[in-house]
Amino acid sequence: MDNNVRSCISGLMNDIRRAKPLVHHLTNYVTVNDCANITLAIGASPIMADDIEEVGEIVAMSSALVLNIGTLNKRTCESMLAAGKTANELNIPVVFDPVGAGASKLRNETVRMMLEQLTFSVIRGNMSEIRFIAGLHATTKGVDASEADLENSLQSGIEIASVLADKYNCAVAITGATDIVSAGNTTYCIENGHKMLSSITGTGCMCTSLIGSFCGVAVNKQMAAVAGLLCMGIAGEAAFEYAGQNGNGSYRIAVIDEISKINAQTIQERAKVYEA
Amino acid sequence: MDNNVRSCISGLMNDIRRAKPLVHHLTNYVTVNDCANITLAIGASPIMADDIEEVGEIVAMSSALVLNIGTLNKRTCESMLAAGKTANELNIPVVFDPVGAGASKLRNETVRMMLEQLTFSVIRGNMSEIRFIAGLHATTKGVDASEADLENSLQSGIEIASVLADKYNCAVAITGATDIVSAGNTTYCIENGHKMLSSITGTGCMCTSLIGSFCGVAVNKQMAAVAGLLCMGIAGEAAFEYAGQNGNGSYRIAVIDEISKINAQTIQERAKVYEA
Amino acid sequence: MDNNVRSCISGLMNDIRRAKPLVHHLTNYVTVNDCANITLAIGASPIMADDIEEVGEIVAMSSALVLNIGTLNKRTCESMLAAGKTANELNIPVVFDPVGAGASKLRNETVRMMLEQLTFSVIRGNMSEIRFIAGLHATTKGVDASEADLENSLQSGIEIASVLADKYNCAVAITGATDIVSAGNTTYCIENGHKMLSSITGTGCMCTSLIGSFCGVAVNKQMAAVAGLLCMGIAGEAAFEYAGQNGNGSYRIAVIDEISKINAQTIQERAKVYEA
Repeated sequence: MDNNVRSCISGLMNDIRRAKPLVHHLTNYVTVNDCANITLAIGASPIMADDIEEVGEIVAMSSALVLNIGTLNKRTCESMLAAGKTANELNIPVVFDPVGAGASKLRNETVRMMLEQLTFSVIRGNMSEIRFIAGLHATTKGVDASEADLENSLQSGIEIASVLADKYNCAVAITGATDIVSAGNTTYCIENGHKMLSSITGTGCMCTSLIGSFCGVAVNKQMAAVAGLLCMGIAGEAAFEYAGQNGNGSYRIAVIDEISKINAQTIQERAKVYEA
Repeated sequence: MDNNVRSCISGLMNDIRRAKPLVHHLTNYVTVNDCANITLAIGASPIMADDIEEVGEIVAMSSALVLNIGTLNKRTCESMLAAGKTANELNIPVVFDPVGAGASKLRNETVRMMLEQLTFSVIRGNMSEIRFIAGLHATTKGVDASEADLENSLQSGIEIASVLADKYNCAVAITGATDIVSAGNTTYCIENGHKMLSSITGTGCMCTSLIGSFCGVAVNKQMAAVAGLLCMGIAGEAAFEYAGQNGNGSYRIAVIDEISKINAQTIQERAKVYEA
Repeated sequence: MDNNVRSCISGLMNDIRRAKPLVHHLTNYVTVNDCANITLAIGASPIMADDIEEVGEIVAMSSALVLNIGTLNKRTCESMLAAGKTANELNIPVVFDPVGAGASKLRNETVRMMLEQLTFSVIRGNMSEIRFIAGLHATTKGVDASEADLENSLQSGIEIASVLADKYNCAVAITGATDIVSAGNTTYCIENGHKMLSSITGTGCMCTSLIGSFCGVAVNKQMAAVAGLLCMGIAGEAAFEYAGQNGNGSYRIAVIDEISKINAQTIQERAKVYEA
């Protein structure tokens, strides 16, 4: 299975680089430049547009839509809902990043509305965010997963992802020391990555942009999510080897470098993915 | 002529570094940091301010105004019009970057209003955006020029730029494999640049910021546009030689590095500019 | 005294890296990514949120609040006031960066309101911004201190900082060739730093984020301000030695690198701080 996954993902990478899918983002202003650059680095084409008057047209020409509530406000929340509805009508895949879910009533209410009104292909969050969505006790600390939530076992994470995947009929990805991607009946675990990824801003958002890029070409959205997380994990490891000792700034640049250089051979040599 | 252009541009670079012109930007939130850093790298001073209550005062103290509709919304569109009008009244040069013109009704209508209500010194876009402004069939793919539009011949681009320059009484710059800068009667072509520039976000926006910086010191706005595109093209080449093999992240940093190091000698050695 | 300051600051750095204080930012969209990354590099945890419906909840879970008016607008000004009031009620330290004070009526009026309605732990600005707050003739040139204002003597800066510190009952930091941090009765001068810091955008904002990070763990807010400026100054020097000759892009990355690597030994070897 492991080798099937590897070759499937290598195929998707080739597809992205050939098709250059347009990935429409409504995202936060903190990491938006990183999201654009990582989308280009994997071979897709980013477009950021958030005015409600144009999001319908922009998403209609796109191959995937990324909704990220990192710096949500009322204006952009409305635009996100409108963009999401158009995407749903047109069968364009929507990837949802519920940044900071659990941290404020506004975020919680926004997440609730999004889940009610939109159909997602993939939901990606950290353990605190996904636990919040699952209705479990979550102790979100700002936009990072809390220590308490991280202490829950891998098995518990797999169960939560699996239940949510069934409930929302989509792939659910939880990023952490071990990444989890469940489609309900099948769940993959990814053991790539490096803890230094948490020392730079935007690695979660960039994961979501990578998943969006893969969704722009993949029929199997769970595999798109696995591919996105695997690429980020491998890039995080390779970047550490190459530039980790230089410090956070160099490491951040190296992550983008590694994404732009990732290929079938890198996947073959480094991927640590297994079915749970 | 070629040597005249080179020495003219070297002179303008010295002028920027001596005068440090303040360049007011109303621009998008995706590449705004890159725009600020490239403005500093060429030796000018960026200021970003977009509230309608202050744009008049800010532009009045500036040497040039850059209007970029990359992530336009109704609030900032109004501010752009107000800033542009003040700049026009005070004879402060205005550079327009019609990002994604052709991609949505909102963008098209905004571009139409800007062209009707404001006088520009330079308009810079890719082939799809400029073709849209020319009223020709354009097939904008998000914020990048489409393959179809790029297949039009250089001669066709020169004609479009020339006609628009006459119509709007300004310099019109089309960036692509060969850059075109027309003032109507005279047109320059620039053959510097590297295709890796299209693998990082914001190179178009950064070109426009460089043109804005040169407009802050240049009497001849066509020459300011040539200077901006030439600097970006040369930096793109030099950055590729220095860091291209490291990947997209390093390349992006190297482009800013090269802009900050560009000088009369680099221009003399590398510039490939000719009158069409 | 000098050695006491050094060991105090080394202690605060350890505290940050142990406690990882959450630092809530309402800041500008130009340098927000740099602010997030430098907050992470020093060991704290950034969160950016600016909708008025959630700022109260977000600041309540934070250890410090940074208010930066770099790209202010009416919506975010209201959010800044609301966040600041909640922080004041909860005794959460608030750091204020009056970017461009003096450059427009909107900025001046906003600064006046902030100073009237909120209590700050630290105010940090350049000489023009702080002179504006002091009601002195200031000649703000955009967001940078003007040449004229910089020609005022160090002694004059110390007096201004000291008077304002008494007036607003907080620490006042003026960044420049020599940084000044006054709490009224005591004032420190810092002679670290490098002029290349002014060739990249956001070094002022990043200083403020570092001060916010130190305020998240320090009882003595003047010492938090000294620590923030000292770290930036030392990183600016070390980054120049390491990467200055490569150009502005590399230098910017190296500044973040050096902040992430700064430690007690670096402080011991490089700090040039004295009581005025």
